[in-house]
Amino acid sequence: MESMMIYMPIALALLGLIYMLVKKSWVMKQDAGDGKMKEISDHIYEGALAFLNAEYRLLAVFVIIVSVLLAIVSFVVPTTHWLIVVAFIFGAVFSAFAGNIGMKIATKTNVRTTQAARTSLPNALKISFGGGTVMGLGVAGLAVLGLTAFFIIFFHVFMEGTWTNTMDMTIVLETLAGFSLGAESIALFARVGGGIYTKAADVGADLVGKVEAGIPEDDPRNPATIADNVGDNVGDVAGMGADLFGSYVATVLAAMVLGNYVIKDMGGAISDAFGGIGPILLPMAIAGAGIIISVIGTMLVKIKNNDAKEAQVMGALNIGNWTSIALVAASCFGLCIYMLPETMKMNFFGEGLVEISSMRVFYATLVGLFVGAVISSVTEYYTGLGKKPILNIVQQSSTGAGTNIIAGLATGMISTFPSVLLFAGAIWASYAFAGFYGVALAASAMMATTAMQLAIDAFGPISDNAGGIAEMSEQEPIVRERTDILDSVGNTTAATGKGFAIASAALTSLALFAAYVTFTGIDGINIFKAPVLAMLFVGGMVPVVFSALAMNAVGKAAMEMVEEVRRQFRDIPGIMEGTGKPEYDKCVAISTKASLKEMMLPGLLTIGFPLVIAFGPMLFGMNHMAIAEMLGGYMAGVTVSGVLWAIFQNNAGGAWDNAKKSFEAGVEINGEMTYKGSDAHKAAVTGDTVGDPFKDTSGPSMNILIKLTCLIGLVIAPILGGHTEDGMAMTNEISVEKIITDEHNQVITKAAIEKYVDGSAKATVKTVTITDGIEDTKSEIFKGSFEEVKKKVDDLGDGVIVKVKEVIE
Amino acid sequence: MESMMIYMPIALALLGLIYMLVKKSWVMKQDAGDGKMKEISDHIYEGALAFLNAEYRLLAVFVIIVSVLLAIVSFVVPTTHWLIVVAFIFGAVFSAFAGNIGMKIATKTNVRTTQAARTSLPNALKISFGGGTVMGLGVAGLAVLGLTAFFIIFFHVFMEGTWTNTMDMTIVLETLAGFSLGAESIALFARVGGGIYTKAADVGADLVGKVEAGIPEDDPRNPATIADNVGDNVGDVAGMGADLFGSYVATVLAAMVLGNYVIKDMGGAISDAFGGIGPILLPMAIAGAGIIISVIGTMLVKIKNNDAKEAQVMGALNIGNWTSIALVAASCFGLCIYMLPETMKMNFFGEGLVEISSMRVFYATLVGLFVGAVISSVTEYYTGLGKKPILNIVQQSSTGAGTNIIAGLATGMISTFPSVLLFAGAIWASYAFAGFYGVALAASAMMATTAMQLAIDAFGPISDNAGGIAEMSEQEPIVRERTDILDSVGNTTAATGKGFAIASAALTSLALFAAYVTFTGIDGINIFKAPVLAMLFVGGMVPVVFSALAMNAVGKAAMEMVEEVRRQFRDIPGIMEGTGKPEYDKCVAISTKASLKEMMLPGLLTIGFPLVIAFGPMLFGMNHMAIAEMLGGYMAGVTVSGVLWAIFQNNAGGAWDNAKKSFEAGVEINGEMTYKGSDAHKAAVTGDTVGDPFKDTSGPSMNILIKLTCLIGLVIAPILGGHTEDGMAMTNEISVEKIITDEHNQVITKAAIEKYVDGSAKATVKTVTITDGIEDTKSEIFKGSFEEVKKKVDDLGDGVIVKVKEVIE
Repeated sequence: MESMMIYMPIALALLGLIYMLVKKSWVMKQDAGDGKMKEISDHIYEGALAFLNAEYRLLAVFVIIVSVLLAIVSFVVPTTHWLIVVAFIFGAVFSAFAGNIGMKIATKTNVRTTQAARTSLPNALKISFGGGTVMGLGVAGLAVLGLTAFFIIFFHVFMEGTWTNTMDMTIVLETLAGFSLGAESIALFARVGGGIYTKAADVGADLVGKVEAGIPEDDPRNPATIADNVGDNVGDVAGMGADLFGSYVATVLAAMVLGNYVIKDMGGAISDAFGGIGPILLPMAIAGAGIIISVIGTMLVKIKNNDAKEAQVMGALNIGNWTSIALVAASCFGLCIYMLPETMKMNFFGEGLVEISSMRVFYATLVGLFVGAVISSVTEYYTGLGKKPILNIVQQSSTGAGTNIIAGLATGMISTFPSVLLFAGAIWASYAFAGFYGVALAASAMMATTAMQLAIDAFGPISDNAGGIAEMSEQEPIVRERTDILDSVGNTTAATGKGFAIASAALTSLALFAAYVTFTGIDGINIFKAPVLAMLFVGGMVPVVFSALAMNAVGKAAMEMVEEVRRQFRDIPGIMEGTGKPEYDKCVAISTKASLKEMMLPGLLTIGFPLVIAFGPMLFGMNHMAIAEMLGGYMAGVTVSGVLWAIFQNNAGGAWDNAKKSFEAGVEINGEMTYKGSDAHKAAVTGDTVGDPFKDTSGPSMNILIKLTCLIGLVIAPILGGHTEDGMAMTNEISVEKIITDEHNQVITKAAIEKYVDGSAKATVKTVTITDGIEDTKSEIFKGSFEEVKKKVDDLGDGVIVKVKEVIE
Repeated sequence: MESMMIYMPIALALLGLIYMLVKKSWVMKQDAGDGKMKEISDHIYEGALAFLNAEYRLLAVFVIIVSVLLAIVSFVVPTTHWLIVVAFIFGAVFSAFAGNIGMKIATKTNVRTTQAARTSLPNALKISFGGGTVMGLGVAGLAVLGLTAFFIIFFHVFMEGTWTNTMDMTIVLETLAGFSLGAESIALFARVGGGIYTKAADVGADLVGKVEAGIPEDDPRNPATIADNVGDNVGDVAGMGADLFGSYVATVLAAMVLGNYVIKDMGGAISDAFGGIGPILLPMAIAGAGIIISVIGTMLVKIKNNDAKEAQVMGALNIGNWTSIALVAASCFGLCIYMLPETMKMNFFGEGLVEISSMRVFYATLVGLFVGAVISSVTEYYTGLGKKPILNIVQQSSTGAGTNIIAGLATGMISTFPSVLLFAGAIWASYAFAGFYGVALAASAMMATTAMQLAIDAFGPISDNAGGIAEMSEQEPIVRERTDILDSVGNTTAATGKGFAIASAALTSLALFAAYVTFTGIDGINIFKAPVLAMLFVGGMVPVVFSALAMNAVGKAAMEMVEEVRRQFRDIPGIMEGTGKPEYDKCVAISTKASLKEMMLPGLLTIGFPLVIAFGPMLFGMNHMAIAEMLGGYMAGVTVSGVLWAIFQNNAGGAWDNAKKSFEAGVEINGEMTYKGSDAHKAAVTGDTVGDPFKDTSGPSMNILIKLTCLIGLVIAPILGGHTEDGMAMTNEISVEKIITDEHNQVITKAAIEKYVDGSAKATVKTVTITDGIEDTKSEIFKGSFEEVKKKVDDLGDGVIVKVKEVIE
């Protein structure tokens, strides 16, 4: 029986999207200013469009190639359905479309914010945050809409809209993984390519403009200025959006996969008011509720006082944010109680089946919300102006660039201490409450406020751009003062947003990792097996090499930009006097082309390694389960090392940035006030140069690397295991309470047992052990034909599980 | 029956030590020069002694505290014997004594090398390398002597010199682990403390001397000059020696532990010409052979031509090194064939017992020798003068310190790629050849040339010091030219030596990790269990935080030095004119005190974390096996992350150093020759400042961190598992072929089974499954009293293993 609850998330997502459209048209109706302001804004908008178009062309090629490969796989591997290709394409398109909405609204909102700031700070906040809201709801709405719609479609295609068994549901969710893979692939382009773009343009513009030509930042005579401003949107808006879009979808998907296994642990079927799929629907319902909650949260963000300062603006954002988190907690409580059976059974390693109440699942969601809130504070402590770590870096700047760099590196490294303890505690606690389903739901609850987080996050670069436009169009100082207040708050939210993104990537990867293990049906990942340990090492190395490649990519792309800017200064007459017009578009084109070219190698590394690990040993005839375990070791290595390097690089980069910024207001070093232009400041500028690719390119890329690695594993999983060769015929022939499984808890088919009897197959069933599934007290060995086994099982009481030990010879 | 073979390693170690004494007296008989040379040399010698004495005082306190703790543990925990305390103290004393020999000979050899260089380069090489040889043989000889002697003593104490069973041998080896723990604890002081010392003195001397006072490096007017020169010996000689002493002992110990489990897998006893302990004696025999081989190798290092250049000196070292490696390979072949049964049975996860020939064990040792040789080339490529990565950093220096830093970081990061693939391949291959016994023997074979490696390694800082003495005592230019040739070769060997030290630490940790798993008797380490995964994260974080603490420690210690030097310049009249004598000893004292103080926090982190993980959950009554698995996850996290950060930091630091050195001979940047003093050179100097603590403090400390972590785990292991409460009564009552074990392959005692019968205990035996140990075809459930089980077992055929599933309720 199908429940109407399944349509609830779609309805809420549509509501969110409608609100988004209303908000968008409101923003677009605002005054976009005049003459020069409009001109500059148009340049940025066109540059952003140019990047998007170039990116889409490359994306199209990528999507076509991967689609063809997936299609081939789906025809060769019987357990993979061709619909995964459709899901993949839509995942990519939805993510790209969400990014498109975000980029467009951000580049339209900036100038309107500047215009509003001419008269009113409250209005400027309303508009800039309105733009952020459009972005946030676009991402969250499309993510939930796409994922839910495809779930419903596949649920009908494979199961005719009615619960049959966990095997069929596994097929549904495996196919749905294509949507997530599509979304995360786009994130690779947007986050890594965008990260390279923004820093290449930034460094290129500074190196020739500021250093060689001696003109100030954001000077319209610099041909790379527009590319620089476009970069802010490409990296901070589109990149962050695609990153969280991917996390959002992957988290919900992983929670659904684990929900399916909760049903399996409970005997293969439950009866509830939701067609027996309550645990699977719950993460979608939380995501749907999160959209409406975010709408409410964004409505609360406003100030009234035209003379407000940073504290009030920050306060307004905080009210919205904390209200959202509180409301998500409340709705998690309601939904867990409403949608889950009062007690569930979950299989814990080494403990067997454990009874878990729905309240414990709720506690797991609280863990997720706690992590989301605390990680932001941790990030803020290590990167915030006026905090101890920053003051220490400032002090160390007085003895030169070397000591500044060492202090910054050390700060980033030490910041892994509280962050990792927080994550480790969260894994432990959410698992203790409700197993890996609890871990995945903790992630889902944290991600429920994605729309709100993105709104707060996108508001930063919009305000930054608004300030740039005010500067370039020579507004009165009060305008810049107002946008500076917004910008300053935006800097803080940018740092905390990065913390949120890492936390989301970490929890998402763990949830995917857990889903992978259950998908493949392996016993676990035992790093005492040398090949698995070897892959743990290799996995740990990949984020380090990826980071290096990303950093080098920035260097190379920046050098191309430098040469183009030099060429224009040389070849365009009157450019320095302001009479010749710089060719902005050429710089935009170079940054676009270089960034997309340079992301190829790290991208290849990300996608190639898991494929080599999975298919390389397969060519040598290695056991699939052993390969699955090795790949799991690789995934764990990438996740652990990737999270560490993400925290290290983001926080070190953020700390150097703010150490440099500290000099703007003046800092006290050894009892003397020191300002911009001092030797200490120059040392801090060097630190910031190192920190730029750390915090804007390689650091944030780690999120994508770890998620994409785990997703690729999940998509490969059906090839490695999780099904026997002949599909799932068995489950319909023996009642679902008495599924015959092999030692990996895989359903054993009639064909497999028949092979045992006549001895024709490579795979031979050697022993059949009958147990009650919890303790091995009822174990007995049984040999016989399929019919005999079936009869034996039918004769036994309820709750008995038959395990077939299959020995591959 | 005891074999004479057990005394062979002791005899060889004594031979090596005798040769060492002969060599030492030869070196000491060489002309130590006159007047000023002798004076400078004496200052360095006294400074080194001052550091050693201060270190020994602190060490004594540390050793007493740990001994008392260990003694308490050994009285509380019945499975831990008090002799472990004795072993611990001797391990610490032997290691400290080896360091003492090395430091003394190094500080005596330097001036003799300078004196010899006045007339003959071949003689200078002979003396400097002779000093290195004394150091190398002192370390290797004492390591083998101590380990073998204690093994023989414990073998007699616990087993009366005759094989009884694997349980008794486990007790012997667990007690022997105390020796290894003692050695590695000293390494913590020597490597971490020494690393802080050398850089604090270096930075302090440069900052005030070169920058503030404007006097050249190594100027005798600088009060910190002697501390700086002492630092070279403390860090590069004593630190490296203690590091390799620890690796050497730990590797052989781990291989012995795993050899014991080979015997267990073969049914609990083998009969061979070595009293049935051939697989346990083999690693000691290889180590013993390695000492004599190293003596032969060092004899081959000589040149004849007084006008020889770097290439010939390097060639002479290479001949010695490669000959040693080839001879070790040959002796491994002979010893494996001679000492091992022709075929052995080893338990492979998921595959059961596999037959392994002794030739396959030999192949595993070849893997180790291959890794030792190749890792040096990899290190040399990424840090060598004139190689592509260095040239790239030089190019990037032209655009400032920021790009230089980025290029150096990226080089270090990318260098993890080939290194980790090499390690991962080595783990895989040696495991595939001969299980974890193969991994441990690969490490043992690699470490067999330790004496030779140390001789090559210690020769570097000796030549460096010799050059410094030539400069300070104003010798003719030809003297400095000759020492420069030696110094230049020494720089290369220093870099490759660091590669060897990392490789040895990595393989040693893996061997210890494997020994830990077998000691505790856990099934493996399943990172799909959330608490284990959480600990993998925490373990991954520790090396990062440790590195940051070590880097910060250098900064703090350097600042204390700066203040002292400033004070002396201010307070001592005539110091700048050369009439007032600087108080060298005060600077030495400050560096000593500061380094030992600052190493406390990272040391506490290293020792504290595993203890908290082990004993924290124990207080809450957590299952010991679950704790053992968590601790294993932590150890794996530390090892994987520690190896990565060691490679990254060492190679980045080495690359920056040589990028800076490249400017001395001049480099071509954008078609122009650029030299010292240019802006690009200044940028490279900044890079070197960052790289100094990387390559000399935090990078090498990683070796100690990962080994000590795994050793602490090994020492805790008996507390966590590996024995049941009542010891090993069972094995003497049922013939050794039919040991009754529980699901973790632990021997089950009479008491435990009786508890099942009367139901009085918390631990209840629920099922007794009888299998043939390979495949579960003979499984049957059996319940009965201890006597009944014993009878049942006696009735069954040979090779039958009885598994008791023990359920804790």
